[in-house]
Amino acid sequence: MNGAESLVHTLLGAGVDTCFANPGTSEMHFVAALDRIPGMRCVLGLQENVVTGMADGYFRMAGKPAATLLHCGPGLANGLANLHNARRARSAIVNCVGDQATYHRPLDAQLTADTEGFARAVSGWTRTVARADEVGRDAATAVQAAMTSPGQIATLILPSDTCWDEAPGGPAAALPVPARPQADPHAVRHAAKVLRERSNVLILLGGLALTEEAQALAWRIGHATGASILAEMSNAKVARGRGRMQLERVPYPADLAIEALKPFTTIILVNSKAPVGFFAYPNKPSRHHREDADIVLLTRYEADPIQALTALADELGAGPAAIPDPGPRPDPARGKPTPEGLAQTLAALMPENTVIADESVSFGRGFYKFTHNAPAHDWVHITGGAIGCGIPLATGAAIGAPGRRVINLQADGSGMYTLQALWTQARERLPITTIVISNRKYQILLGEYQGVGANPGRTALDMMDLGNPNLDWVKLANGMGVEAARTGTLEGVADLMQQSFASETPFLIEMEV
Amino acid sequence: MNGAESLVHTLLGAGVDTCFANPGTSEMHFVAALDRIPGMRCVLGLQENVVTGMADGYFRMAGKPAATLLHCGPGLANGLANLHNARRARSAIVNCVGDQATYHRPLDAQLTADTEGFARAVSGWTRTVARADEVGRDAATAVQAAMTSPGQIATLILPSDTCWDEAPGGPAAALPVPARPQADPHAVRHAAKVLRERSNVLILLGGLALTEEAQALAWRIGHATGASILAEMSNAKVARGRGRMQLERVPYPADLAIEALKPFTTIILVNSKAPVGFFAYPNKPSRHHREDADIVLLTRYEADPIQALTALADELGAGPAAIPDPGPRPDPARGKPTPEGLAQTLAALMPENTVIADESVSFGRGFYKFTHNAPAHDWVHITGGAIGCGIPLATGAAIGAPGRRVINLQADGSGMYTLQALWTQARERLPITTIVISNRKYQILLGEYQGVGANPGRTALDMMDLGNPNLDWVKLANGMGVEAARTGTLEGVADLMQQSFASETPFLIEMEV
Repeated sequence: MNGAESLVHTLLGAGVDTCFANPGTSEMHFVAALDRIPGMRCVLGLQENVVTGMADGYFRMAGKPAATLLHCGPGLANGLANLHNARRARSAIVNCVGDQATYHRPLDAQLTADTEGFARAVSGWTRTVARADEVGRDAATAVQAAMTSPGQIATLILPSDTCWDEAPGGPAAALPVPARPQADPHAVRHAAKVLRERSNVLILLGGLALTEEAQALAWRIGHATGASILAEMSNAKVARGRGRMQLERVPYPADLAIEALKPFTTIILVNSKAPVGFFAYPNKPSRHHREDADIVLLTRYEADPIQALTALADELGAGPAAIPDPGPRPDPARGKPTPEGLAQTLAALMPENTVIADESVSFGRGFYKFTHNAPAHDWVHITGGAIGCGIPLATGAAIGAPGRRVINLQADGSGMYTLQALWTQARERLPITTIVISNRKYQILLGEYQGVGANPGRTALDMMDLGNPNLDWVKLANGMGVEAARTGTLEGVADLMQQSFASETPFLIEMEV
Repeated sequence: MNGAESLVHTLLGAGVDTCFANPGTSEMHFVAALDRIPGMRCVLGLQENVVTGMADGYFRMAGKPAATLLHCGPGLANGLANLHNARRARSAIVNCVGDQATYHRPLDAQLTADTEGFARAVSGWTRTVARADEVGRDAATAVQAAMTSPGQIATLILPSDTCWDEAPGGPAAALPVPARPQADPHAVRHAAKVLRERSNVLILLGGLALTEEAQALAWRIGHATGASILAEMSNAKVARGRGRMQLERVPYPADLAIEALKPFTTIILVNSKAPVGFFAYPNKPSRHHREDADIVLLTRYEADPIQALTALADELGAGPAAIPDPGPRPDPARGKPTPEGLAQTLAALMPENTVIADESVSFGRGFYKFTHNAPAHDWVHITGGAIGCGIPLATGAAIGAPGRRVINLQADGSGMYTLQALWTQARERLPITTIVISNRKYQILLGEYQGVGANPGRTALDMMDLGNPNLDWVKLANGMGVEAARTGTLEGVADLMQQSFASETPFLIEMEV
């Protein structure tokens, strides 16, 4: 058995059975091992940011890590932006990077780069394998590191000779994953005291505390104490729709966030952090809560929010509380596309248990309000602000959640970053409906530019303009084997959505706004 | 004047008048400054690897650096692979990266990343501006660093507050660029002695030594001494065609490289390094020259090869020697596309002074042999092995060499990495003819896989296969506003080439092989 075979056996033994890949020469022994050893589903992406974004989407739905297979430092570099997003989502990924042979590296051949340097900035754990017989041990440690709560990127760099050399020790057994930390009893009692004694308390949910079960516990606590509940702005996955809380997020624009948080003199953090601006702006505060707010930590990101919220509800004697009915499901909207109209149409038509992959950027900021009355669904966000996340995320989510409809709400400018993922959707025949919000500009930047206090001139407008020439998303999708159609009305969107939902293959709707 | 205005004035004052950009929120003050201050040509790319690849291509033709404008750590990360290629080409780039405000960075907002960490691995010079009043000085130093021979990437990271704060000191004047080092007289004398006394000497040209003038000097020396002359395998720019040497490169495949270098017991390095394998392979040497070869350094990368080769020719008393005529220009080839046939057709039809941007990967390894009899032209290569270089490189080259035809020989798998650059070609109306070699597979990997000693099975074939579904490059190009057509014959390629050469706008030929 060589090192590559030891790697594949170790990964499979630890339950990692999906590999998102764009291999190169230095990974040929890994590919040969995948060929010989059954059990690993290999999914090809045509650029590495597609590969890493798919691995992120996969984890968010499957709840277990996939492996990646990337080619040397530059291949890793191409995938860093979506690894950044995955890091912010706290997704577990076993990020395998092939590299120059150990003895070849000092010769500084063309593709030689600072692979470890690139990896460290996005990884919770990074290791370069030293020799073939250690591949098994290092791979098992990588899986353990990736799965350690809340989830992280574990980058395993494999010089090519560690893959082709003999590994007589063979694969390593899976290592135990530490349990999620329990809440500090003092923190639970303090939070209970605060909730009993104070008004104007906000419970801020993030990360693991956005499941249906955690929301139900938070709702009980809010109902018993009068505390308000919000989610963080960017979340890996939020359980939403009928049966779940009508949870809103801290708004993105600084002024709106400050306004939304102004009432709260106490903020209890449940797997979240105190809200800060996405960016700084001249003469605006970077922290969006009140200066005098008391920040109370219930649980850190890695802790078990179910245990903590259960303990808190018990401490408070908070009894069961029914989640309010969101009202009847709406009819699809009509007329020219608007954010509210698109959200209403989604609520009207999305199948039960849909996954929404949301990279709608500025267009989609208000979607939550109009989709509480949709069937139960999961909503996944761009978490790190690195655009180019949506199409790969949707692709990986579809692989991680077989049998569920995935709807990708996709801004056009961001979509162009990783449009290659559409090809993988076609190849894997995934039930994904992509709705491209085609406004033919970087709309968010026009808003931001106005914050600079000037009207944009020719140069500035050109830098935010995706027209001249217009992108034709129907041709782009067709060019990668994905069926597509264009519409300028919400009736058209509704018709195309229904057509897409009736099919198990991917479909793209270019919605002109 | 604010920091951003100081930046733009400083860049313009130092002769940097072209900016390849994909800005974000933190760069809005830079964009506003570009709006207010005339003189900078701004070119938008729809993904950052397009932006950095264009900056590389621009420098290779214009011989002076462009600025980039990238958005935070993840935006830089997206552009790293082509910065890696640019680093290997030793291209000068003033790589400007906007980032979180200095006081906002500690709050670890979503987009906050290790921007400096990403930058250092590809940059010869990296600095994060500390405050607005230092932007001018730091920008002038960045330009100086970028332009210091042979050329390097200078990354200037600009926290947003350093752009919007007042910079009362204003812009900084351009700093002097150090002259290229002259050759060590001892090295010249030693090389002359070697050339006089030994046979089986190879003069290996790289980097700055591949201009027409340097080749003519090398030819004189070779003619006088019987030494052979080769170019390195991957080169930033090679002057080729009628009037230039019939120069060949060190081959890419290890066996062929070893065979080509076997005769040479002495290798004189002129702005080059001793040849090593692109990758290591089991049981093959990493160095491709003879073990007993004597490696003699004439000039390092940064030195002036014209001065050195002139001194060497003088020391040898090597008189003028006419470059041999390459024979008549061929007719276009006919029949099914082959590498030889495509090269012959190029030689037959390319306009005088064409720029060839070559990312043809395995298909194009033998192009040189069949294009010596083409009109004078420049050939630019993928230098760092990070695929996804070709389309952006061609785009930047067209901007850096106005009035010249650019032909991009483009492998399909590599082309998919950065196809977004086609949109910039359409927008800027650039005279670029892209020839996509559509074999619908990662052909190079099939060859490499066989080196592993096995026939690929289903999993392996799937990981190297770009069919299922087939990519339709005509639709992809049309979707970004570029005219395109498909052909399966060399006659078709010739017809479409001629049609394209008659137009000043971009055109893509999908050549099915």
